[in-house]
Amino acid sequence: MQPGRISIIGVGLLGGSIGLAVKSNALPFHVVGYGHRRSTLDKALEVGAIDEASDDLAAAVSGASLVILCTPVLLFDQILKTIAPALADNTIVTDVGSTKRSVVQQAESALPPHASFVGSHPMAGSEKRGVEYARPDLFQGALCITTPSINTSTTALEQVEQFWRSIGMRITRLSPIDHDRLLADVSHLPHALAAALVNLQDEAALRLAGKGFLDATRIAGGDGALWRDILLDNRDNVRDSIGRLRTQLDHLLAMLDKNDADALANWLNNGSQRREALLKEKLREVNPD
Amino acid sequence: MQPGRISIIGVGLLGGSIGLAVKSNALPFHVVGYGHRRSTLDKALEVGAIDEASDDLAAAVSGASLVILCTPVLLFDQILKTIAPALADNTIVTDVGSTKRSVVQQAESALPPHASFVGSHPMAGSEKRGVEYARPDLFQGALCITTPSINTSTTALEQVEQFWRSIGMRITRLSPIDHDRLLADVSHLPHALAAALVNLQDEAALRLAGKGFLDATRIAGGDGALWRDILLDNRDNVRDSIGRLRTQLDHLLAMLDKNDADALANWLNNGSQRREALLKEKLREVNPD
Repeated sequence: MQPGRISIIGVGLLGGSIGLAVKSNALPFHVVGYGHRRSTLDKALEVGAIDEASDDLAAAVSGASLVILCTPVLLFDQILKTIAPALADNTIVTDVGSTKRSVVQQAESALPPHASFVGSHPMAGSEKRGVEYARPDLFQGALCITTPSINTSTTALEQVEQFWRSIGMRITRLSPIDHDRLLADVSHLPHALAAALVNLQDEAALRLAGKGFLDATRIAGGDGALWRDILLDNRDNVRDSIGRLRTQLDHLLAMLDKNDADALANWLNNGSQRREALLKEKLREVNPD
Repeated sequence: MQPGRISIIGVGLLGGSIGLAVKSNALPFHVVGYGHRRSTLDKALEVGAIDEASDDLAAAVSGASLVILCTPVLLFDQILKTIAPALADNTIVTDVGSTKRSVVQQAESALPPHASFVGSHPMAGSEKRGVEYARPDLFQGALCITTPSINTSTTALEQVEQFWRSIGMRITRLSPIDHDRLLADVSHLPHALAAALVNLQDEAALRLAGKGFLDATRIAGGDGALWRDILLDNRDNVRDSIGRLRTQLDHLLAMLDKNDADALANWLNNGSQRREALLKEKLREVNPD
C-alpha cells in the first residue's frame, strides 16, 4: 500500500488499536479518525491513536488511500452510502465487522467503481469498550480473516492483507459464506451459550459458581448491543449451530439414559483431546519454532 | 479436632494438596496416605504431602481421628465397606467428592455407629491430575460445601468444618439433595456443555477458534473418567439442567425468528450483568474489606 491517509471510521477499542498499531509499527500513514462524539475523538488524539479528528464522514475519507470501518456493523450500510461520493480514485475500503455476508453485499452495492471493497475480520478484541482500552499490540499474532467475493480486486485484497500483516496479523482467506457459517459455530454460538448458561442459573446456584463457571461464561461479559447485531445478522447460521448443539445434547442424554459409561467417557475425552490439540496449535502459531 | 492421625485415602491432586496444606498450616496431625500404586505414595512422601504411606486400607485408617476419601467417587462404596471394621471409636470420615447424595447414603449405610460421616465438597481443583501438581494453597479462599443429613452428628459436622477452615476454606452448608441439584446447574452442565461445544465443531471451524472459545471450553480439558462418574451419578439433575438450557435456547431461537432486537439485547445484557455482579462478589470473597 502506498503511503498516504488512512481513515478510521469509529475510534473505539478496535479503531483506536489500529491507529496505535500504525504508529507503533512506524507505518508511513497519516491517520484520520472519524467519530460522532467529540470526547471520543479528543481521547483518541490524546492517546496518539489518530493524527487528525473529524466528525464529518465525507471529510474524514477525503483523499484516503485506505478507509477502515470500525463502527458497529449495523451502521455500515448508512456509512457506506454517505462516504461513496467522497472517495478518491483507487481508495480501498475494508472493515473489522464480525459478520461478512451482509457487509460485503452492502459495500459492493454502495461503493463506486473507482473504489474497492475487501471484507476483513481481524479476530482480536476484548470485553472492554472504548478507545481508552486501545492497545498497539491488540492485533499482534492474531488471525485476520479476509473475505474476498468474486467481485473483489486481487490487488486490493493483497494490499489489505499486507496492511493487516504490517500490524502483526496472520491472514486466512474465506468466502463471506464460509466465514459466517464457521464463525457461527466457533464464536457466535459460544457467546450465546455463555449468556444462556448465566441466565438459566438461579441465585442459589450462582453463589456456588467456581473458577470453571467464570471462565466458561467470560465471553458473556461482552457488549450486549454488539452481540445482538451479530446474532441477528447471522441468524440462519446461528440457528444451524444451535441445531448441532442440540444433537450433541441429545447424544449426551441418550448416554445418561443408557448409563453408557464407555461412550460417555469417549465423548468427554474426545472433547478434552481436541481442545488440547487446539491449544497446542494456537501456542505454536503465537510462538513458531 | 483433637491432634492425631489423619488418613488421606487417595493421594492425587486433592489428597496431596490436603496433606501439603496440613503441613504448611502446621496443623498437629500425623498424615497417613493410602494409595494402591507405590510410585504415587513415594511421590507423596517425597513432596512432603504425607508422613507415612500405606497400601493397605485397614492399616491406613487404623487409629485415625479423621479419614478423608479422595479417590474417584465410584470407588467410595467399596472403600467404605473395607475400612468400616477398622475404624477406631469416634473416627470422623469425610470426602472430597463432587456429588453428595449417593456418597452420604453409602457412607451412612456402611459405617459402624461408633464412627461419623460428614459429606464435604471442597470446590477446588485443576485440570491437572496427580500428586505432582498438589499445592499447599489449593484450598486457600475457596468454598467448601458440607452436606449434613438428618443423621449427621453436629459435633462431627463442626469438627469437619473446622478442619476445612484451618486450611483456608470458607464453608457453606447444603443438604445432599440441594447440593446435587445446584451443582448440576452451575458445574456439571457447564462441563458437559464445554465438551459439546468442542465436539460439534468441524476442523475448519476449530482452526478459527480465538481466545473466547478457548476460555469457554477450558473446563472441557478435565479428566474424562472423573466427569463421566459425576454426570452418571447425578444424571437426574443433569437431565433437568439440560432442560433449563433448552428453554433458554428456545427463547433465543424465538427472538431470532421474530428479529426481536430489544428482547435479544436484554437477554444478552442480563447475562453480562449477572456475570459481572458474580465476579465482583467472588473478588470480594477472596479479598474481603
